[in-house]
This record gives sequence, structure tokens and C-alpha cells, in this order.
Amino acid sequence: MENIFLKIINREIPAHIIYEDDLVIAFLDIVPVNKGHTLVVPKKHFVNILDGDPDILAHMMKIVQKIAQAQVKELGAEGFNLVVNNGVAGGQEVMHSHFHVVPRFLGDNAYPKPSHVECSNEEFLVIREKLVNVIS
Amino acid sequence: MENIFLKIINREIPAHIIYEDDLVIAFLDIVPVNKGHTLVVPKKHFVNILDGDPDILAHMMKIVQKIAQAQVKELGAEGFNLVVNNGVAGGQEVMHSHFHVVPRFLGDNAYPKPSHVECSNEEFLVIREKLVNVIS
Repeated sequence: MENIFLKIINREIPAHIIYEDDLVIAFLDIVPVNKGHTLVVPKKHFVNILDGDPDILAHMMKIVQKIAQAQVKELGAEGFNLVVNNGVAGGQEVMHSHFHVVPRFLGDNAYPKPSHVECSNEEFLVIREKLVNVIS
Repeated sequence: MENIFLKIINREIPAHIIYEDDLVIAFLDIVPVNKGHTLVVPKKHFVNILDGDPDILAHMMKIVQKIAQAQVKELGAEGFNLVVNNGVAGGQEVMHSHFHVVPRFLGDNAYPKPSHVECSNEEFLVIREKLVNVIS
């Protein structure tokens, strides 16, 4: 499958690039949720957070902060969302990792509220037990 | 305003804690978008990504990865979302930074699609110019 982000990194197709260093590139999303919507993308290919190099992911996070601060300062954003969709089930469409940094304005209604599920205390305890054993 | 997350960190109110270290704590969201929905929270107070210590934010990202990997391995998640709402305009409700790590399953329809805005090429160029000067 065509990797459109690698083509942007390699300057094979144009993009509105706003930041670049050895590890990451950031450019404006061409289908923005709000004006200024930026994607932060690793130069080295990995699919998503699940298989990414932790140090590169950590660096991406620092760049997200800089971009969000610039959206506030330069675009008048009143808040922002960081959204990362991982896997087809998570809504990921381009299979090269990318972080969405979306400026927000009061009342823009850009993101509808998610749905929620019922979870009993017994279920919480089972889930906790399953997760706590593999993270530490 | 009451900071419910500091109360969890200080063990003043209970939570289903699944991970803790010197810098962060992670526990199950009591109003989950899907079962296993976890919050990653810094122990030191800051409001959101805009005012956070970059090194703590980077560390939070690494813990997000570990939790997502555990959600896949232990809960059968087929993908996940990382969602961080920053500022009231960004949908932030608790004013202590927290990252949502939400396991996803094909067809769960947990997050509705966001809306999009029109943006002309002239506007893209103006936005790029404003942002590129403050990030590098």
C-alpha cells in the first residue's frame, strides 16, 4: 500500500511543512478538523504507537507540545486535542504512525462525545488484575 | 476546584490503579468508553500538555505505549485511541492533565467521526507561515 507520509518526507509530494528534525516531520492535515490541524509523523516507518520506538514516541510528544503552544499563540486556539488512532479498529487510515494536533475553539463542536459502556465493579477488578501484571 | 486525580494519587479516594512510578499513575476510568479505558496522570500537578514539563509528558507517552500493549495482549483489544483533551475548548473536564488510553474493537463505534472545515490553499499558506516561525 502506498505510504503517502513517506512520500511527503521524501519530498515526492508537496505538503505544508511546519517543522522538521532528524526524527520527525510535522505538516498541516489537508482535511482539517479545524484550521491549523497538524500531523506529527516519525521519519522512520512504524505503524502506530504499539510498534513504535519508545524514544521516538517520547520525542513526538515534545513536538506535539511545541505545535500546540504555537497554535494557541499564533492561531488564537483556545484549547486543542491530541488524537492518535491506532489500528483499523481504532480508526487508523494511513498505516504510518501520525499524531493529530487539532486546535479547538469554544463551541466549535469539532469532536462529538464518545459513547460509554457499563462496567461492573467485578469487571473492573478482573480488568485491573489482567493489566497490572503485565505493565510493571 | 476539587482535584479528584490528586486525591487518587494521595489514596484519599479509591481507584483501580494498574501502574505507578515516581512520575505518573495510571488507573481505570470509571466512566469507560470501552472496558479497559485507562487514564495516565502525572503525579506533579499541571493542567494539560500546554503547561506540562516536556520530560514528564515524554515519560507519559512511554507509559501509554505499555498500557496499550497490555490492552491488546490481555484484553484482546484490536486497536486503541490515545485522546488528550486540553482546555475547556478542547473538552477537558478535570483540570489536571490526563491521557485517555481507550481499547478499541472492530465495529464498536465508540468514537463518532469529527467534522471538518474548508481551508483554501491561501489559508494553508498563511497558517503555515504563522506556525513555522515559532516552532523551530
